[in-house]
Amino acid sequence: MVLELKVPESAGFGALRADGPVLLAYLLSFIYLGIYWNNHHHFFHLVPHVNGAVLWANLHLLFWLSLVPFVTEWVGRNFFAPAPTAIYGVVLLMAAVAWTIMQTVVLRSQEPNSALARALGRDWKGKTSLVLYVAGILLTFVHPALAYGLYALVAALWLVPDRRIERTAR
Amino acid sequence: MVLELKVPESAGFGALRADGPVLLAYLLSFIYLGIYWNNHHHFFHLVPHVNGAVLWANLHLLFWLSLVPFVTEWVGRNFFAPAPTAIYGVVLLMAAVAWTIMQTVVLRSQEPNSALARALGRDWKGKTSLVLYVAGILLTFVHPALAYGLYALVAALWLVPDRRIERTAR
Amino acid sequence: MVLELKVPESAGFGALRADGPVLLAYLLSFIYLGIYWNNHHHFFHLVPHVNGAVLWANLHLLFWLSLVPFVTEWVGRNFFAPAPTAIYGVVLLMAAVAWTIMQTVVLRSQEPNSALARALGRDWKGKTSLVLYVAGILLTFVHPALAYGLYALVAALWLVPDRRIERTAR
Amino acid sequence: MVLELKVPESAGFGALRADGPVLLAYLLSFIYLGIYWNNHHHFFHLVPHVNGAVLWANLHLLFWLSLVPFVTEWVGRNFFAPAPTAIYGVVLLMAAVAWTIMQTVVLRSQEPNSALARALGRDWKGKTSLVLYVAGILLTFVHPALAYGLYALVAALWLVPDRRIERTAR
Repeated sequence: MVLELKVPESAGFGALRADGPVLLAYLLSFIYLGIYWNNHHHFFHLVPHVNGAVLWANLHLLFWLSLVPFVTEWVGRNFFAPAPTAIYGVVLLMAAVAWTIMQTVVLRSQEPNSALARALGRDWKGKTSLVLYVAGILLTFVHPALAYGLYALVAALWLVPDRRIERTAR
Repeated sequence: MVLELKVPESAGFGALRADGPVLLAYLLSFIYLGIYWNNHHHFFHLVPHVNGAVLWANLHLLFWLSLVPFVTEWVGRNFFAPAPTAIYGVVLLMAAVAWTIMQTVVLRSQEPNSALARALGRDWKGKTSLVLYVAGILLTFVHPALAYGLYALVAALWLVPDRRIERTAR
Repeated sequence: MVLELKVPESAGFGALRADGPVLLAYLLSFIYLGIYWNNHHHFFHLVPHVNGAVLWANLHLLFWLSLVPFVTEWVGRNFFAPAPTAIYGVVLLMAAVAWTIMQTVVLRSQEPNSALARALGRDWKGKTSLVLYVAGILLTFVHPALAYGLYALVAALWLVPDRRIERTAR
Repeated sequence: MVLELKVPESAGFGALRADGPVLLAYLLSFIYLGIYWNNHHHFFHLVPHVNGAVLWANLHLLFWLSLVPFVTEWVGRNFFAPAPTAIYGVVLLMAAVAWTIMQTVVLRSQEPNSALARALGRDWKGKTSLVLYVAGILLTFVHPALAYGLYALVAALWLVPDRRIERTAR
């Protein structure tokens, strides 16, 4: 896990309370990276072979995920500041876009009615996530707390591992 | 290994002596992470396949282990301060709880009398560890040294790799 | 991914604009490391077994790639300064040289007319890259922007995964 | 690779010259870690299965190797200071001792006249290394340059991958 936590300067319990936002941002980002990690694991279970385009789509996803520690630290130090909150959402949105692209590239490299295609179906969860992220980014400018609410809602949507794929894998 | 050590400012042997607590905390945490690493290796040897719930239980364990470098550095800089010592114990306790949850989730996904179930038996070592951690956290407020004594005792309990599982694996 | 990004001090959108060069350098290096990662993956698909010389040639490549985060950060903080721009090119050049050496070592360990040898052919792409890097390093002293133009050109050359190898692998 | 390099403050070529010792220490440690990495790869090729004792012996080795980045940075910032030079040697010596222990533990878990036992023979290289490290540590107090000479000599001894094992593996 690439997320990093700065050690508090003082040695009292109060130091942890002051570090609350940092820890909360860490937790949210950990859950997000965990969702991608788990879904990635499930997804590639159904992909028999990987070509060059899939490798690049995967690296594109990795690029956005590699920015998560950066925005997490920024958000943790400036909780409820609009700019970091919005940029955090942009990185999450771009990671979701990259995931969608990767899915499409993989599907195109498979046969038309593959197990994976049937497992994914119309992918309403993926599409809903994109909408919720965009809404969250825009709502940052009303109040950052609204943005965090929507980001957390997307995480909740995905916390359940993709049963569609698990069912098909059996 | 994700543990980090700050380089001392001066260039004399005295610098290492001053860094003693940091190195001691590093050693204790290294042993803890090593125990989890080894037992994880042994444990999943007996698990034929992994479902979504197991992946999440595993990530939950990883979450608490990912906090070990953070609390290790905090403890190393504030040896014998009650707050870091207690929080260090809380992270170790939560990792042990996460391990117990993961074990339960895996066992539920197996057949009732699987090799793993027989290997684990009544898991007195797991249960004793939880009790010792809680005792250690509470004793922090009497004297932090007592807490470290109990944390080290748990490590000693687990240093012997899980022969139950090794025996069954053969 | 070993590249690191420093979190900006302030919490406004302006902070990102000020960090522009750092992010651009990060992006360019990410693409470079991605190219090596992907080509490495493709390349070793056609290598049935690895001997000691190949392991060392691979570590030599890893050595130069391990310096990429270092020069990336230096370049990001001193955009358009000649020394970091030239050294960045030297590290990229040496990584390309190390790749060429590794390729040669692997080819020598294979049979004379192996699938890999046919896939690589005369390797004009590898040779052109070396020439472009040297040109870029020299042009640093005219204007660093010229160097970046050539470095980006090499990246563009390689962004297309090595179809030669992919075709042969089938 | 866990070694880290601090980015120089200034943007001129002179900065690299000032960073010379740091880069040299980085190079020496990279070679050492590379030797362990490659020999580890070769060694476990001949080990059919791994038990609990081997896992622990391996973690013990990993513990000392995990200290290499720490002593490398200390040495790089204080080149030719006796204390860091000696401690650097102690960490290398302990890693070599840990390697010897791991080898012994693995050999004991194999049959008496296994391929690995024949490949290793009397292990004069391992024994010579231990002697050279101890000599290097003691010579630190005469002049640190003598210590570096001996450390580099050990590296040179091992740079050739273990042909004994490679030959047997075929």
